Amino acid sequence: MVPLVKLKSFEQFNCSLAQTLSVIGEHWTLLIIRDAFFGLTRFDQFHKSLGISRNVLTLRLKKLVEEGVLHKSEGPGHPEYRLSEKGLALQPILVAMTQWGEQHMPHSEGERIVFTDLQNGRRIRPVSICADDGRVLGPSDLRTQFGPGVWNGESAPRQPDTLTAVLSGVIGTGSDSSEH
Amino acid sequence: MVPLVKLKSFEQFNCSLAQTLSVIGEHWTLLIIRDAFFGLTRFDQFHKSLGISRNVLTLRLKKLVEEGVLHKSEGPGHPEYRLSEKGLALQPILVAMTQWGEQHMPHSEGERIVFTDLQNGRRIRPVSICADDGRVLGPSDLRTQFGPGVWNGESAPRQPDTLTAVLSGVIGTGSDSSEH
Repeated sequence: MVPLVKLKSFEQFNCSLAQTLSVIGEHWTLLIIRDAFFGLTRFDQFHKSLGISRNVLTLRLKKLVEEGVLHKSEGPGHPEYRLSEKGLALQPILVAMTQWGEQHMPHSEGERIVFTDLQNGRRIRPVSICADDGRVLGPSDLRTQFGPGVWNGESAPRQPDTLTAVLSGVIGTGSDSSEH
Repeated sequence: MVPLVKLKSFEQFNCSLAQTLSVIGEHWTLLIIRDAFFGLTRFDQFHKSLGISRNVLTLRLKKLVEEGVLHKSEGPGHPEYRLSEKGLALQPILVAMTQWGEQHMPHSEGERIVFTDLQNGRRIRPVSICADDGRVLGPSDLRTQFGPGVWNGESAPRQPDTLTAVLSGVIGTGSDSSEH
């Protein structure tokens, strides 16, 4: 059950995406979280839903509790696992991934899943990147800037200066590049 | 290099999230896509950025090309890998995951990364689930419904009827549950 080669860890990267992947990037973790959003709380429910080994499920649940994504109930009876605030905050990621799957890997018989607004029954919008005035932004509308957590980090994955240069040249189409 | 135990595949699940994970859920894949958004295009650039084995990187790039997330240039010189439309559509997922990491796994020295609107330099909004009129929806505002792709699917992970019941009881706080 122990992998032969220890996987290089995401945690070593001083990158917010890699940090997120260090918590939710293991096989099965996002499907466990999906099931928690669906209201499953008990080990046997997750086990039946996913069909993975009890060993792997135990490891994944333990990690999610340690990371504060799930709360584990203490007390008599079977323990229950429920999403914490930190876990509930993953919902936009899960919905965005589900919508991407619906759009780019559709089922031949039609939609598998539709998210609606409980208040009025209407479909929600596609999860998007929005400017502060609500405009939907595409890949060439976004600038990525580095803050003190990268500059003072011990293990930034590469030089931010280089990255910024690469970014402006390749996906930046705003004033920086159009003036040249 | 070959794992001892073949991992159970996500593809067998008739679930849009699992389908998405079957494309972007492998170790390193999302960091390769991150680097592609940052403008890296060549094998050696990805290799230097991530520090993973050439073998694993080769497998991941091959898969992303097969799945249509990356286009691989043919012709003389080093091949180049660029995001397709399908790959560019992953950006909200990556930004949402990065924002979650910033908020819930912060660096002690401050922010690592800030996304701004290229047009006016202002910070973007947190990636959120929005109703069709733009209201931000939380976990208890969302209903998940199943379409023909699930009902006719051969391997739905569980009975949608059960799921709907669980959903209304546990995370539904709208009219369905408040009337009882």
